Amino acid sequence: MKVVAGWHASPMELDRVRRALPVGTEVVTLPGHDAVAFPYGADRAAYLEAMRDADAVITWVLPHDVVRAAPKLAHVSWLHAGCDRLPFDEFRARGITLANVPDAHQAAIAEHAWALVLAAVKRIVWKHGEHVAGRHVPYWRDGGVGGTLSGSTLAVLGVGSIGAQIARVAHAFDMHVVGVRRNGTVPHPHVDRMYGEHELHLALAQADVVVIAVPSTARTRGLIDAEALAALRPGAVVVNIARGDIVVEEAVRDALDEGRVGVFASDVWWDYEDAMPPDQHFGSPSRLGVHLRDDVIVSGDQASNVYFARDRMLDRGLENLADMIAGLTPRGAVDLDEEY
Amino acid sequence: MKVVAGWHASPMELDRVRRALPVGTEVVTLPGHDAVAFPYGADRAAYLEAMRDADAVITWVLPHDVVRAAPKLAHVSWLHAGCDRLPFDEFRARGITLANVPDAHQAAIAEHAWALVLAAVKRIVWKHGEHVAGRHVPYWRDGGVGGTLSGSTLAVLGVGSIGAQIARVAHAFDMHVVGVRRNGTVPHPHVDRMYGEHELHLALAQADVVVIAVPSTARTRGLIDAEALAALRPGAVVVNIARGDIVVEEAVRDALDEGRVGVFASDVWWDYEDAMPPDQHFGSPSRLGVHLRDDVIVSGDQASNVYFARDRMLDRGLENLADMIAGLTPRGAVDLDEEY
Repeated sequence: MKVVAGWHASPMELDRVRRALPVGTEVVTLPGHDAVAFPYGADRAAYLEAMRDADAVITWVLPHDVVRAAPKLAHVSWLHAGCDRLPFDEFRARGITLANVPDAHQAAIAEHAWALVLAAVKRIVWKHGEHVAGRHVPYWRDGGVGGTLSGSTLAVLGVGSIGAQIARVAHAFDMHVVGVRRNGTVPHPHVDRMYGEHELHLALAQADVVVIAVPSTARTRGLIDAEALAALRPGAVVVNIARGDIVVEEAVRDALDEGRVGVFASDVWWDYEDAMPPDQHFGSPSRLGVHLRDDVIVSGDQASNVYFARDRMLDRGLENLADMIAGLTPRGAVDLDEEY
Repeated sequence: MKVVAGWHASPMELDRVRRALPVGTEVVTLPGHDAVAFPYGADRAAYLEAMRDADAVITWVLPHDVVRAAPKLAHVSWLHAGCDRLPFDEFRARGITLANVPDAHQAAIAEHAWALVLAAVKRIVWKHGEHVAGRHVPYWRDGGVGGTLSGSTLAVLGVGSIGAQIARVAHAFDMHVVGVRRNGTVPHPHVDRMYGEHELHLALAQADVVVIAVPSTARTRGLIDAEALAALRPGAVVVNIARGDIVVEEAVRDALDEGRVGVFASDVWWDYEDAMPPDQHFGSPSRLGVHLRDDVIVSGDQASNVYFARDRMLDRGLENLADMIAGLTPRGAVDLDEEY
């Protein structure tokens, strides 16, 4: 059994991988001196070479050609929550098992969602700029007025582990919470009213704040389009903590232009595979300039850029990998048909 | 009975004041066409004139000379939570009754505190700036790493209505909560361990995040001095939602310089009565330039600058005033000795 640690693993990380796997497992990693950087560019050749006879890979990065170059590959331990941009056609055709780490940093992602919600509702970024510039924001007029969460309604799109934690905090803020999940008949204690995916617009119509926490799959890409944004209360805050492609870029630009969306806050951006260097895919600014607007608050794929997140992701990924190698169903098993 | 509404009240506001008070009460307001601005500068003469035979005042602004010019004044309905900068010596000497509105916007203030905590812990303002500038924040290195609330410890200084709500949200974020109040033997369900005011440094020593929510009184001014900041965990986040003068300006500047405080976030600033125009007292930048630092996040007295806050404050203030006029103890009665 040969396992590739598909990044520039430090000696300490390599030791952790070896200890977590059965005795006799061969573990190789990619050459390099940077324990943090992912392998791109010039490193791709080493990655392809290491994968030629690999049985399994544990990794933060998995280009499609790396999978095609690994004819024996049977198990992929994916160190992210989101499974978009993985070569699912190849996985399905070859029966490769896949596991991800959706619960490794759910707290950090839910917290980042709240940081964006509050920055948007309270206009923190704009007010910071005004104060630093020495400008006084007058009371109760002239566009400087913020919202109050208490008594308002949050719509959580996707009530998985992250969405459920977002809903729990909303209740502590005395918000009314509506949720949208594939099966709207499954309740959750922190969602006051659950809707099915076909009832999305009913939920949006009640929302002062929307947080998008669905995985990016064929069912969800483009979900937040012009019609969805038109269903919102005028001036609603929209926060995307999931993936850029859930939101239609032109639609959100138009909704901001027309004031239908009050503030758009996003940690995730559209992916211009062809236009951007590969290490900037997730963090790319909007080609329409959405990120430059005064009514937009942005971070670039930063939700899991917190202390100890990498350790937790690696720990959970190693549990998954050990299970897959042992022929067990890992905690993070991904359904290859649903793609999450 | 003559009541002065001590601002440029709109006709609708004046009607609300009249309806809330006993039939026959004379209500006057200050001339002017702006329903939002407070009376300062040229308006002071009209305020002084209106107060000459006033029995009571309901107001957002009460300069000391206005009180001295009102020999019959018996009741003050103060439309803020904070009672600092009121002429307590005059109130005590003359037996003037005073009430404030501590619970009119407690939700908005607690929410603003959380907006600042999350902006600080997740470095939202800085990351927004980096993304807008097209700079990629790398993962898990180079100063761009944020904290995680879950599992960390919040110290709430002042467990009144605002502090208690802050603690409640902290529990929803799975934080450990320590509280400091005057009497540390009085527990609160959302504070895991309560400390008395003499145990402040014990509580600070456990904190990853500190939120200051105490009133500004003789007991609390300068409470967060060099010794208090030295008691913190290195890199702790300090958020001031109370009044600027609780924190010693030079001490927080030095603690930031030395990295003992990781991020300072504040909605309230030091008061330079002599140096600044009176309508900018609360929102004044720091004369030491604290507000200009990269490790500081600021807003200028914006916590209650939310929709409907003014209405709620006026409603609660009118309840207080009607009670005082009737000889009852109002819900917001202020202890003239404790000054809150």
